[in-house]
Amino acid sequence: MTLKFHVLDQHGRARTGRIETPHGVVETPAFFPVGTQATVKTLTPDDLRAIGAQGILANTYHLFLRPGAELIQRLGGLHRFMAWPGTIMTDSGGYQAFSLGLALEHGVGKIAKMFPGDVEAPTRPSRKALARVTDDGVEFASHLDGSRQVLTPEISITVQQQLSADLILAFDECTSPLSDYAYTRDAMERTHRWAARCLDAWTSTNQGLYGIVQGGAYQDLREHSARVVGALPFFGLAIGGSLGRSKSDMHDVLDWTIPLLPEEKPRHLLGIGEPEDLFASVERGIDTFDCVAPTRLARHGSLYTADGRISIRKVVYREDMAPIDEACPCYTCRHFSRAYLRHLFVAEEILGYRLATIHNLHFILTLVARIRQSIADGSFAELKAEVLARYRAA
Amino acid sequence: MTLKFHVLDQHGRARTGRIETPHGVVETPAFFPVGTQATVKTLTPDDLRAIGAQGILANTYHLFLRPGAELIQRLGGLHRFMAWPGTIMTDSGGYQAFSLGLALEHGVGKIAKMFPGDVEAPTRPSRKALARVTDDGVEFASHLDGSRQVLTPEISITVQQQLSADLILAFDECTSPLSDYAYTRDAMERTHRWAARCLDAWTSTNQGLYGIVQGGAYQDLREHSARVVGALPFFGLAIGGSLGRSKSDMHDVLDWTIPLLPEEKPRHLLGIGEPEDLFASVERGIDTFDCVAPTRLARHGSLYTADGRISIRKVVYREDMAPIDEACPCYTCRHFSRAYLRHLFVAEEILGYRLATIHNLHFILTLVARIRQSIADGSFAELKAEVLARYRAA
Repeated sequence: MTLKFHVLDQHGRARTGRIETPHGVVETPAFFPVGTQATVKTLTPDDLRAIGAQGILANTYHLFLRPGAELIQRLGGLHRFMAWPGTIMTDSGGYQAFSLGLALEHGVGKIAKMFPGDVEAPTRPSRKALARVTDDGVEFASHLDGSRQVLTPEISITVQQQLSADLILAFDECTSPLSDYAYTRDAMERTHRWAARCLDAWTSTNQGLYGIVQGGAYQDLREHSARVVGALPFFGLAIGGSLGRSKSDMHDVLDWTIPLLPEEKPRHLLGIGEPEDLFASVERGIDTFDCVAPTRLARHGSLYTADGRISIRKVVYREDMAPIDEACPCYTCRHFSRAYLRHLFVAEEILGYRLATIHNLHFILTLVARIRQSIADGSFAELKAEVLARYRAA
Repeated sequence: MTLKFHVLDQHGRARTGRIETPHGVVETPAFFPVGTQATVKTLTPDDLRAIGAQGILANTYHLFLRPGAELIQRLGGLHRFMAWPGTIMTDSGGYQAFSLGLALEHGVGKIAKMFPGDVEAPTRPSRKALARVTDDGVEFASHLDGSRQVLTPEISITVQQQLSADLILAFDECTSPLSDYAYTRDAMERTHRWAARCLDAWTSTNQGLYGIVQGGAYQDLREHSARVVGALPFFGLAIGGSLGRSKSDMHDVLDWTIPLLPEEKPRHLLGIGEPEDLFASVERGIDTFDCVAPTRLARHGSLYTADGRISIRKVVYREDMAPIDEACPCYTCRHFSRAYLRHLFVAEEILGYRLATIHNLHFILTLVARIRQSIADGSFAELKAEVLARYRAA
């Protein structure tokens, strides 16, 4: 194993650490922007470096279907393909299979009804499932061409090896907040059997494999899953699946599971990344995050400020010469006014999406860097109070 | 007049020069990327500087309608609004009025049938005109909301002053290659009357006003227009309107007009910018160009190489690890393969449009810089022969 993780500072459950991968060091807590199709939408690798990204997360499901993992392998792996020299994490495809299956049937996203009307919601209610789960894996219809496809634990690990990601995830079955106890338990047990198969399939010492804790919002299932997955010889652990119906539910899930996980392994929280969630999760012991929110919100014109998100298309910004956030030193805020950004969004100019993405990712990455620093110098509680006193969640 | 133009080197009619504007020096021959809506699509000002842009051209018609020239004036002018510190040229809106009028009726673009199936063609055949020309100016229906709008010579100059462009254009009436002699003559005479009104309305010594030579593809009209417009106290002269039905027609128009224009004024060719056209126009005495071709073609995946354009979506590039052009030092070619670019285009990722735009503009701007150097050192003919021997026009 060429990968390493060390905890550096710890205050309560909040901690700083270092993940060493073949593509550099990730100082934790860390946030990984999502580059679904081998690109963090609208940005170059240079842009990502300039805003402080240490690593990104790419989606196995999407790259498996297009352009294909074997192709990327023949072209030298994902780092070379997309010219990103830093750390890459890939997910397993399990969440996307869920999105085509249960999530589509139940009309729910990552956290049901957590953000009413949230643009992040990947699904629409009450449609016929396009995926079917068996003990072997998931059969699904490609969202690109409807072709029948199969992902299993073994295929997922093979694909992630072909992509040559540094941090990879075990193949798991996600459940919906609308799934009942029995189904959630069965899915968790299947995920545990798949975890063992992923460990068997995992052969590369240049990749750190994360097991995934499931169990929905049921305390006994989450605790059981944390004990089972935490005891397996994974490099790291991730908290996946349904995190309930509210932020309070999500906090419960973290409080149930994290104390049962081994201290010496890095902990990833899948698909969460709003400012208030970063504080709540770090103080419960999470080390790394990935989330489409900053980038997807940016492309919808919803921009972070210290006081909360603003919708840049609003007419109130028509003549506003101030930057998005007066205190922000990002490229966008140093050069452009809200009035100009509003014009770009109203005119549907691509530059607007890029400038907004630079700003939103810079905002989140800077916040995570401040959180990291605050743990190191013992001021995490003060930082949290200061930031959340101003920040109004949208 | 704070603007200046000097001819530096001259070989035959080809020449180098310097246009000094309030926002820097433009070394000529020069190519201005088009930033229609106060953004060169997909690029930041930093990107433009990195690829060697000295100036850009923005469209008065579009900015007049959205966000409005008065708004941009209140916000400090176009340079500040879009954070572009270099030279800005604005057109007069005449060409867009033409596009909504005659061009729409006749189904023609800048040069009729010059590039069969060209993606640049702004019009579709045989539609009802949305603009009406009178001696006072042009009434047209906004392409955004259908509202009735009016542009006159005086309004056009006022708008361009509100935008605070460095180089501005007189309001003219363009004709179509399908316009007959009588109509083309009447339109030319109207353009000449409008030229005098533009000169009367032109009050800013921080802006250099260009007169526009019209006359379609009719030799006597072009010669007459060159003499009339060339004798007026403009800062510079532009060749506008229909350039005929072939490259040969365009060469004729340049050969008829340029010898009749004063040597001491800069000469702009409107809307032309393919590699072979740059050579043909520079050797006939053109100093500056603007054209949407490099940027629009880029967004369609049509990329310049020394051997001609390639269509990056083609399956032949699926596993091609070479850059777009082996010899190109642009950011795109230094970091990314044709295979990756193809993937981005097939997946409709915004990054693809940006990387392609960087490359295409770098290609054209570098070619123009080489042309400039070749005139200075007396090797223009050799450069032209060398480049065009390889370059196959698409």
